Amino acid sequence: MTTLFLIGIGTGNPDHVTGQSIRALNAADLILIPRKGAAKSDLADVRRQILSQVLTSPVPVAEYDVPQRADQDDYLGAVNDWHDAIARAWADAIATRPDARNVALMVWGDPSLYDSTLRIAARLPGFAVKVIPGITSLQALTAAHAIPLNTLAAPVTITTGRQLRENGWPSGATTLVVMLDKGGAFTTLDPADTHIWWGAYVGMPEECLIHGPLSQVSEAILATRARLRAEHGWIMDIYLLRRGSDV
Amino acid sequence: MTTLFLIGIGTGNPDHVTGQSIRALNAADLILIPRKGAAKSDLADVRRQILSQVLTSPVPVAEYDVPQRADQDDYLGAVNDWHDAIARAWADAIATRPDARNVALMVWGDPSLYDSTLRIAARLPGFAVKVIPGITSLQALTAAHAIPLNTLAAPVTITTGRQLRENGWPSGATTLVVMLDKGGAFTTLDPADTHIWWGAYVGMPEECLIHGPLSQVSEAILATRARLRAEHGWIMDIYLLRRGSDV
Repeated sequence: MTTLFLIGIGTGNPDHVTGQSIRALNAADLILIPRKGAAKSDLADVRRQILSQVLTSPVPVAEYDVPQRADQDDYLGAVNDWHDAIARAWADAIATRPDARNVALMVWGDPSLYDSTLRIAARLPGFAVKVIPGITSLQALTAAHAIPLNTLAAPVTITTGRQLRENGWPSGATTLVVMLDKGGAFTTLDPADTHIWWGAYVGMPEECLIHGPLSQVSEAILATRARLRAEHGWIMDIYLLRRGSDV
Repeated sequence: MTTLFLIGIGTGNPDHVTGQSIRALNAADLILIPRKGAAKSDLADVRRQILSQVLTSPVPVAEYDVPQRADQDDYLGAVNDWHDAIARAWADAIATRPDARNVALMVWGDPSLYDSTLRIAARLPGFAVKVIPGITSLQALTAAHAIPLNTLAAPVTITTGRQLRENGWPSGATTLVVMLDKGGAFTTLDPADTHIWWGAYVGMPEECLIHGPLSQVSEAILATRARLRAEHGWIMDIYLLRRGSDV
């Protein structure tokens, strides 16, 4: 049976990679690398850089083209179709090395957090799946700002930009982490008594951080995000919002 | 100015340690190690083991005794007093090496998540604080079970056993991660339509995992937890609860 190793590599800082991930990459006999055409957001270069730093002897690499996600109204339906297409791309790439017993995929951040690899892997019958944890952008954000995720003994909600736009501030939440925001979902909130810690490219050389009362820094974040996106051709950002006095 | 490095080391598996943490430990000129008398839960041995594996040349170590937390009714007040006492213990330990410029503390998991070190560090005037992220027990749990943290595009709430007992299932939540549970807070829930993924000592050689419908595995988890706690003299566990069909 072939085992598929989903290996968390952290957020683009090769120094985020753990000893466990290095060991798993070296034990692989095939490593899959996604390719999104000319888009820099495929981060294929970061993956190759990590491999050049951690592999003690060469491991075969199969690059595969990431299918485009259809931009249809039915969001969950579109995502499901897209995952089916990626699973076929993985299967085709793996078929180029029929003898491979340990196939590795390097997952940005950690395979558990707003990542599709586990759901895609579940579409491949006859594969065992093993997960190696990695540093998430959430931890890279709180580390960069040197702040705790939670206030003392209090809960934390992690959500998406889409959820925040559609459902507003979750009732009872004091700390909210927003990921996968296409930009500015926080502008839909009443900014009173709300503090934001924002970061783009957290953990990477391009890292950019802004924090302050939401009412005061909201515009600066929107402008900085637009500038950085134009400058780099892509952006990945995340932010933590806190309501109440314990900031 | 002295810089205090709060270094995430993961959950007891020396292989969880990142390149960034290894670099920071080697750059320290003093490393503080907590000591809780004979209690195994201080994990001082795991810290020493990690140091023996990652330090390329010796770094001075100062062990300090962790003060006891008072068991008073005012929980948050007791915690605050306790943090004050730990800050004094750190200051005393650091004072033994007045020339130290880079002082390192090895933090179980990640310094952002239900961890006190950032709040304790804020009590030491005149120190700069830098945080190095580490693998959390949450990631070690989801990796061990090979499950995603969130269901597709949905939010996640991280909370404590105390919060779950006092406030019940948070409204609107489908995925709930419970940490710092003194044991069995999930028994206060209606188990219908609820799945649990539980783990003790996640990432460590003692790792123990149970998952299934809450109504079916609740008793097994309670019994296993009691047995392991008696066997090892301490326990650290965490669990993920999911409601609805998308498990």
